[in-house]
Amino acid sequence: MNQKPSIPKGTRDFGPVPMMRRNYLFNTIRSVFQLYGYLPIETPAMETLDTLMGKYGEEGDKLVFNILNSGDFASGINTELLQKLIQDPDNSALVSRTMTSQVSEKALRYDLTVPFARFVVQHRDEISFPFKRYQIQPVWRADRPQKGRYREFYQCDVDVIGSDSLLNEAELIKIIDDVFSKLGLNIVIKINNRKILAGLAEASGLGDNLTDFTVALDKLDKIGIEHVSKEWISKGISGESIIKLTPIIGHMGSNTDKISGLKDFLKSSTAGMKGLEEVETLLTIINRFNLNSSVEIDLTLARGLNYYTGAIIEVKSLDIHIGSICGGGRYDDLTGIFGMPGVSGVGVSFGADRIYDVMEQINGFPALAQSGTQVLFLNFGFDEATVCQPLAGQIRAAGIRCELYPDPLKIKKQLQYADQNHIPIVVMIGETERNAGKAAVKIMSSGEQINVAFPDLTSEIRKII
Amino acid sequence: MNQKPSIPKGTRDFGPVPMMRRNYLFNTIRSVFQLYGYLPIETPAMETLDTLMGKYGEEGDKLVFNILNSGDFASGINTELLQKLIQDPDNSALVSRTMTSQVSEKALRYDLTVPFARFVVQHRDEISFPFKRYQIQPVWRADRPQKGRYREFYQCDVDVIGSDSLLNEAELIKIIDDVFSKLGLNIVIKINNRKILAGLAEASGLGDNLTDFTVALDKLDKIGIEHVSKEWISKGISGESIIKLTPIIGHMGSNTDKISGLKDFLKSSTAGMKGLEEVETLLTIINRFNLNSSVEIDLTLARGLNYYTGAIIEVKSLDIHIGSICGGGRYDDLTGIFGMPGVSGVGVSFGADRIYDVMEQINGFPALAQSGTQVLFLNFGFDEATVCQPLAGQIRAAGIRCELYPDPLKIKKQLQYADQNHIPIVVMIGETERNAGKAAVKIMSSGEQINVAFPDLTSEIRKII
Repeated sequence: MNQKPSIPKGTRDFGPVPMMRRNYLFNTIRSVFQLYGYLPIETPAMETLDTLMGKYGEEGDKLVFNILNSGDFASGINTELLQKLIQDPDNSALVSRTMTSQVSEKALRYDLTVPFARFVVQHRDEISFPFKRYQIQPVWRADRPQKGRYREFYQCDVDVIGSDSLLNEAELIKIIDDVFSKLGLNIVIKINNRKILAGLAEASGLGDNLTDFTVALDKLDKIGIEHVSKEWISKGISGESIIKLTPIIGHMGSNTDKISGLKDFLKSSTAGMKGLEEVETLLTIINRFNLNSSVEIDLTLARGLNYYTGAIIEVKSLDIHIGSICGGGRYDDLTGIFGMPGVSGVGVSFGADRIYDVMEQINGFPALAQSGTQVLFLNFGFDEATVCQPLAGQIRAAGIRCELYPDPLKIKKQLQYADQNHIPIVVMIGETERNAGKAAVKIMSSGEQINVAFPDLTSEIRKII
Repeated sequence: MNQKPSIPKGTRDFGPVPMMRRNYLFNTIRSVFQLYGYLPIETPAMETLDTLMGKYGEEGDKLVFNILNSGDFASGINTELLQKLIQDPDNSALVSRTMTSQVSEKALRYDLTVPFARFVVQHRDEISFPFKRYQIQPVWRADRPQKGRYREFYQCDVDVIGSDSLLNEAELIKIIDDVFSKLGLNIVIKINNRKILAGLAEASGLGDNLTDFTVALDKLDKIGIEHVSKEWISKGISGESIIKLTPIIGHMGSNTDKISGLKDFLKSSTAGMKGLEEVETLLTIINRFNLNSSVEIDLTLARGLNYYTGAIIEVKSLDIHIGSICGGGRYDDLTGIFGMPGVSGVGVSFGADRIYDVMEQINGFPALAQSGTQVLFLNFGFDEATVCQPLAGQIRAAGIRCELYPDPLKIKKQLQYADQNHIPIVVMIGETERNAGKAAVKIMSSGEQINVAFPDLTSEIRKII
């Protein structure tokens, strides 16, 4: 058998260098989550179709990767459906849709949110609320692969469930600030509130028709206020309202300006005023934190609107133009879909792949992100290797990553290995050194070479590192 | 919608406590791998059917979880096959087997070995050999779930590829010893060599019919030497050979005894003598390491025989009876299946789930394996929380995991939360404390309570921890 091997489109192999960088990224994020008392959970890669279907809209459902039932899956296919497929092969797409649930009863998770909601409901009796959890696992989507969009990618979710307090929103924003500060990235944190959006629609005369209001608003950056206004007018918003809205919704003006504009505009809407109060309280708490990042009210922010009920949060990179790199919000009824209503939660998700791309483009990964070998003993033959092994053991006992080249190949070839693997220190113990009880230690970056007596080797190497 | 949520059979949710323990386990294993210069890689959860199929034998192929093609998968089904299914529904199992490749072109990985071989061949030009890699990822198998056997479980593989040196085998055995010493588990490391097994078969008069020899040998522990001998005799092994074999193969006798017995028995077999020399060299190197665990030649060890070509390694727990908890060996042609022959490798795989079970049963997880919150600030209201936040920030800056209870609930309820989450220190700042500038610090284990001035809080808490 002689195949040219490849991997499914939209998926990736991670070799040592990207892996060490990814681990640095995940460890940084994880360490911040833990400092704030969030606890890890993991859920299975597969969920039942009952759990997943109908949670992501019709488009989302199509992007779920189904697992074919094991064994005799064909026995589950309805005969009528088989006949339909034979008689009308042009309509096979329709048949496929029906057949899916006959040949598959589980699928790969599409995100971490629905599995988390399922977890909370399933384990409600074991959980002490408020439940602060984080979850860092891959998800799978049958999206068309393109630059920066993959069919397998990691999500890093952090949520508090079972608490209404705005302290949670504030803490998540502090966590965002901590994570990106530690990573050395410049960001702006944009916030909005679903209740304000509802209030804006209401005060504009659209009643509870939030969608008409936000669908136009969402396009502000692309089409400009003039076209947004035209769309709004076509939906029935008065010219007077639009004049009042214009200064509030744009990206100009301070948070204070926006709040005072909103105070005026929303005064007739109870929901709107409640949302505004939430935003003001949130900003009051946040102001005490002395964040590195700025927090900006952005009324065009409406991500996942049908899902969030309070705060909406999104993070943009100021280093490069790449879209949202983190986002989330408050949801009041996520577990309701699994029969456990009235549990409010708030959470954000860090987009590991995009953050990785930003880090890479600005050369943001420290050299330390490489957890590779620090010391390589060259191999001059079996007897010399015998001397190297206990010395290497002592170096490892000091927590220094160390290896012995396994084969007594030409020294040039072994040094090339050190070079290719970015190993900073090479230790040479040939026959001469062995007899003298001294190792030749070579610092690869400078080419400098020193002789060190065997008992001093670990401490000398520690000094060099 | 009101569903009672569940997860697919054979899969598991991991809540905070098992997660923290699993992380402790994986981190311990990973840290040892890294100390020896092994580098991390990750491969996609899905591989193409071309990569996976035919690699695990007919039984293995059936246990692979196939991914249903996205979109209109039904259009790929052959009409003839559809008709067959309608006409002869009793033979649907056969139809299913053929239909699989028509509705699926990828599957979940079954182990980490085949994806690793695929990775090496696909990236051969980027890799500098010898390539020392480790890989810790889940694998999926449609096995019938039972106690201790799951459909999703993690493997922790560590391999060197591109080096023939026995130093690699020795290093892996040292790594095994390091890992289990760090975990505090008592083990025995059993070794064998495929060439010795070949030699035993040859010297017993079975030629290269290794299978007849090992199939019987494999049952030694179950059926005893008498029945093994009967089977051997039925395959054509002489009574004289069996008399010589008996003292060598049992679990009695030292390695030295076994080696001298083998030296006599194998002298007519070139392969056998080569294998014996390998084992002797390996033991010579290992003896220098002063391992905590004993290493024992076990000639009944034949795991994955069709796969290994040299050393065979297996680890058994001495703490509880649970089967193999780690194993591996030398393979001379793993990448050959992907068209890259002649690359020798050796590796072992740690069975994380079984090791977890042993650790749990002997109470081997340190309390430190819980990376949960260390300090909880109780919430006495918005104004008091305002005072707590910067103090909590200082404690976190010292690397101590700390949280502020989000809601101003009854103190009893908040203390209950601390209790349920095993949080060792609780800080209380009510109105009195706030005015006095002192926090009440309660040590949950003893109930002891002390008053600490705000500026001393971090250092006092550090002392307590």
